[in-house]
Amino acid sequence: MSLSQDQLIALQEARESTQPTRRSVAPGMEKHLFIPYPVLDHGFVTAVDYMGDDSAIVQAARVSYGAGTKHTKDEGGLIRYLMRHHHSTPFEMCEIKLHVKLPVFVARQWIRHRTANVNEYSARYSILDNEFYIPDANQMAKQSAINNQGRGELLDPERAEVVRRMLIEDAARSYDHYIENIRPEAMGGDNLARELARMNLPANIYTQWYWKTDLHNLFRFIKLRADSHAQYEIRVYAEELAKIVKDWVPQAYRAFKDYSLNAETLSGPSLRYLQHVLKDIAIDVLDEDEAKLFLPNDRERREFMALFRKL
Amino acid sequence: MSLSQDQLIALQEARESTQPTRRSVAPGMEKHLFIPYPVLDHGFVTAVDYMGDDSAIVQAARVSYGAGTKHTKDEGGLIRYLMRHHHSTPFEMCEIKLHVKLPVFVARQWIRHRTANVNEYSARYSILDNEFYIPDANQMAKQSAINNQGRGELLDPERAEVVRRMLIEDAARSYDHYIENIRPEAMGGDNLARELARMNLPANIYTQWYWKTDLHNLFRFIKLRADSHAQYEIRVYAEELAKIVKDWVPQAYRAFKDYSLNAETLSGPSLRYLQHVLKDIAIDVLDEDEAKLFLPNDRERREFMALFRKL
Amino acid sequence: MSLSQDQLIALQEARESTQPTRRSVAPGMEKHLFIPYPVLDHGFVTAVDYMGDDSAIVQAARVSYGAGTKHTKDEGGLIRYLMRHHHSTPFEMCEIKLHVKLPVFVARQWIRHRTANVNEYSARYSILDNEFYIPDANQMAKQSAINNQGRGELLDPERAEVVRRMLIEDAARSYDHYIENIRPEAMGGDNLARELARMNLPANIYTQWYWKTDLHNLFRFIKLRADSHAQYEIRVYAEELAKIVKDWVPQAYRAFKDYSLNAETLSGPSLRYLQHVLKDIAIDVLDEDEAKLFLPNDRERREFMALFRKL
Amino acid sequence: MSLSQDQLIALQEARESTQPTRRSVAPGMEKHLFIPYPVLDHGFVTAVDYMGDDSAIVQAARVSYGAGTKHTKDEGGLIRYLMRHHHSTPFEMCEIKLHVKLPVFVARQWIRHRTANVNEYSARYSILDNEFYIPDANQMAKQSAINNQGRGELLDPERAEVVRRMLIEDAARSYDHYIENIRPEAMGGDNLARELARMNLPANIYTQWYWKTDLHNLFRFIKLRADSHAQYEIRVYAEELAKIVKDWVPQAYRAFKDYSLNAETLSGPSLRYLQHVLKDIAIDVLDEDEAKLFLPNDRERREFMALFRKL
Repeated sequence: MSLSQDQLIALQEARESTQPTRRSVAPGMEKHLFIPYPVLDHGFVTAVDYMGDDSAIVQAARVSYGAGTKHTKDEGGLIRYLMRHHHSTPFEMCEIKLHVKLPVFVARQWIRHRTANVNEYSARYSILDNEFYIPDANQMAKQSAINNQGRGELLDPERAEVVRRMLIEDAARSYDHYIENIRPEAMGGDNLARELARMNLPANIYTQWYWKTDLHNLFRFIKLRADSHAQYEIRVYAEELAKIVKDWVPQAYRAFKDYSLNAETLSGPSLRYLQHVLKDIAIDVLDEDEAKLFLPNDRERREFMALFRKL
Repeated sequence: MSLSQDQLIALQEARESTQPTRRSVAPGMEKHLFIPYPVLDHGFVTAVDYMGDDSAIVQAARVSYGAGTKHTKDEGGLIRYLMRHHHSTPFEMCEIKLHVKLPVFVARQWIRHRTANVNEYSARYSILDNEFYIPDANQMAKQSAINNQGRGELLDPERAEVVRRMLIEDAARSYDHYIENIRPEAMGGDNLARELARMNLPANIYTQWYWKTDLHNLFRFIKLRADSHAQYEIRVYAEELAKIVKDWVPQAYRAFKDYSLNAETLSGPSLRYLQHVLKDIAIDVLDEDEAKLFLPNDRERREFMALFRKL
Repeated sequence: MSLSQDQLIALQEARESTQPTRRSVAPGMEKHLFIPYPVLDHGFVTAVDYMGDDSAIVQAARVSYGAGTKHTKDEGGLIRYLMRHHHSTPFEMCEIKLHVKLPVFVARQWIRHRTANVNEYSARYSILDNEFYIPDANQMAKQSAINNQGRGELLDPERAEVVRRMLIEDAARSYDHYIENIRPEAMGGDNLARELARMNLPANIYTQWYWKTDLHNLFRFIKLRADSHAQYEIRVYAEELAKIVKDWVPQAYRAFKDYSLNAETLSGPSLRYLQHVLKDIAIDVLDEDEAKLFLPNDRERREFMALFRKL
Repeated sequence: MSLSQDQLIALQEARESTQPTRRSVAPGMEKHLFIPYPVLDHGFVTAVDYMGDDSAIVQAARVSYGAGTKHTKDEGGLIRYLMRHHHSTPFEMCEIKLHVKLPVFVARQWIRHRTANVNEYSARYSILDNEFYIPDANQMAKQSAINNQGRGELLDPERAEVVRRMLIEDAARSYDHYIENIRPEAMGGDNLARELARMNLPANIYTQWYWKTDLHNLFRFIKLRADSHAQYEIRVYAEELAKIVKDWVPQAYRAFKDYSLNAETLSGPSLRYLQHVLKDIAIDVLDEDEAKLFLPNDRERREFMALFRKL
């Protein structure tokens, strides 16, 4: 992880100073604020601001019956209900702002999430640092034989080492040329415009940005990018975010895990086949008592049983 | 359905005139263009423009391997794959523009779909027509006893008739007052500003707008609003839209029906219980040959079997 | 302003309790939090949460040269530069959440601002309060003779009183019918579904919602809705918001006022005419010393002089 | 410009085949469809689909007074009024879809325009072509001395040639390594996953995408990216788009040019200074007859004169 000494001091100062606020405070998030969590070889994720907590979700849902700002007994139950029925707007009432350092090719995937606010380091304005993502040996994988856009088994270790050295050398050479072009002290003062010089730099150079989004869209990000089909290099960011979110809004995160992250969509035909099997064949394999072990919530179990059980 | 004579003539003219274009043309949509399909007592839905077809979805997906504008053999298979795996961006390449007449309380639900372009009739600028939605007797339902935001069984017919008459009279009176306030020929020329006068009009008055969105967001609209939990009065619009879309992009619509409209999301715990039942208990109830009847596509059936079958 | 006793107590409690936070705190906003500012006869605006301050805008802009979280000497100057050059993304780093009570016809204008998060009181789920907007006598204006969508001079006071009484009576009657339909204790227990009963209610009934947006989009809202062409009834909300924002982010608000709210766009032809007048005619009317009184900032004055001064 | 033979044939076929449609047809756009306009050394812009024309803008604006689909006498005047008063929603009723080939560093700026639909060539799935942007000698500029994010005068020709050669060599080497890693026939069949191999490629490699947006957002794109402060390499794309749009919606484009592209925003203080000069000083320099030469439209001239003329 690469933070300048100045940045580390600023983060430390930010962590140490607290001020009173009338806003709701999420203790689980406060403890993460301004801690840069390392990701990949030079990247990090830092939560630098947030708004709202589990109660804010409930409060927004509760506006429908005028209960205003008051708290409810069963926040978790209501949040699970909202998530299960895809009532997404209350989750939009929470907001998070992150400082992220990430390779450019990861940034290019990340930016596709359009409902977000972004301010990125500008290579037209500033000089990029000499930091490039070089995969570990245990990430040097072959093209997948079955998935056209994924990776398969690991390269032979020697071959992996050759690739690694090639990436390191190419990065070093391109960065040298970059610096040579923008700081040609040796060449009579001519210096190439930064906005041109940077075109030489490969996609594994690191950039950084502030990225701000609401909880609903953050869940979508995690769902898509922590998925096994996502590229490893963005997945590790999504997983780091998931840890922070889990502490920030524990009830919402649990609901997200059950009803989205670990859920599966059964197509109409798949559903009909399962219903055929479970409802039509002779032996009733669905047992109420056993089902309770998996689905302790009465309402949820009823909905499930109505889908599959022979009546 | 309420269209002025001028509007009907303009629609008829638009239907009868064709011009050559180099764009892709969707024959199934052309036949719907400029036909106002009645919805509720005075409403309608008319498709007035569109862009793209099933091939446009495939073309957008195919940019990934440089096949550019060329057509593929198995468009349907690719479209189903995209839909099944939530690759939504290719569906955004199709666009539709509708002219809709609808009660204000329906418009208030509809407008919550934010990714759309809207131009609505302005009651600050123009005078609203004397058209109000009055539910049929077979829609005069009681509050649901089990669903806090739905309707249950029908009112007693006599009671329903009382309500209907009340709605009709209230609408008539409020409209009379509205007109009296903005056209007070009898009152010495004083006329209330239209932007104030309209505040008297109830939520069942009709408004109209042009509404334009992309196919991905249209599918979301249909999924949410054609759902049994949606209010009947918006559901009938969603169902009318579904018929048009089915002819416009038949392959995409079929995929949408199987993988979204008729699909169910199984939560993580539900999934684990089903897996427990189907994988762990002794009798193997999932039969490859039978499954083929429901899931003829090999890849899809394999994915399904991997989820549930004992190995 | 209409808040239930419960709501007032909850607001008071929220105001009185503070907790420590590591986040940046905007003192100017803290003092507004949970105070319901009255708007119109029963409406209000209450700031219930926020994220960011002037420094957050600067911090986001500064990511471009790696200064990270450190503060700058001239925050105001940078913020003015960003606003003047339409660099809007740093302003998106601040977020506000409001609780608003407003007439339905105002809500219908407000909701057109799509880049926002909304949770509204549901009349499918809950019973609306008996609160209707009735304009003051000094708002009872005639249709404008020159502006097709605005109001002109006041109605004759007697006529205004007739209109007011009509609005009050219509509101009362429609609300009576509404309640009669959903609470028909007298009629054998039949009750109309709430989602149907509410269609009788006129557009001046009050609704309420939580509304959350970022500072850039809030500025756009204020620019459009505090404008003299906006309807008075939404303008008063925009003006109330402007007061809160002015204390929340004083530097950003000042820049917004100078470069957006009080600015004028000169069309190409208008600009050329002014340039013709000021650059081409004999007498040089632009005086550097005088200009300094209006435009003390050197850079801004240079930009201005370059546009108009004869060289 | 680099299109494969297959792509060129497909474009030619698409150009030659027309079909009848009931939709409105924009003749000025039809002639551009499927023509790849070269941009930079290997890039292009091709309009591949569109929806709407000047009349669609007028139609959307006219819904406000129920004239529906009928045409108006003075479309241009209404469109200018809409543009002058920032009524942007009618412009959203037109949509365009483009096929663009562009260097990655340009794509990174372009993608910041969030209200758009995008499908990009996937380097996880496919192999990128050996095409890199190498600036012409007349674009090899030094860093600007006055603008921190722009370019100034040209490099010395010899130095420029050194840089060019360096860019060419670095591109060739990185592409060789890329191919070597994904097609290592010589190395026993091991091949690096494409999603990893591409990280070696510099930011001047070309990518391609379909990009679809509405006319309002396209105007914003052109306004920002055809601006003199935009980087040259994206400006040339914006300028090419402007030419297409000018023929597609000639009235809207003219209004855009006058009221946005060539317009200037005068800050509140600048405006007050100009008003001071023009209204308060003795000599009246604004002459009605002369003003007519610049501002022939009466309404617009009146608005202008009201701002600046001594009364």
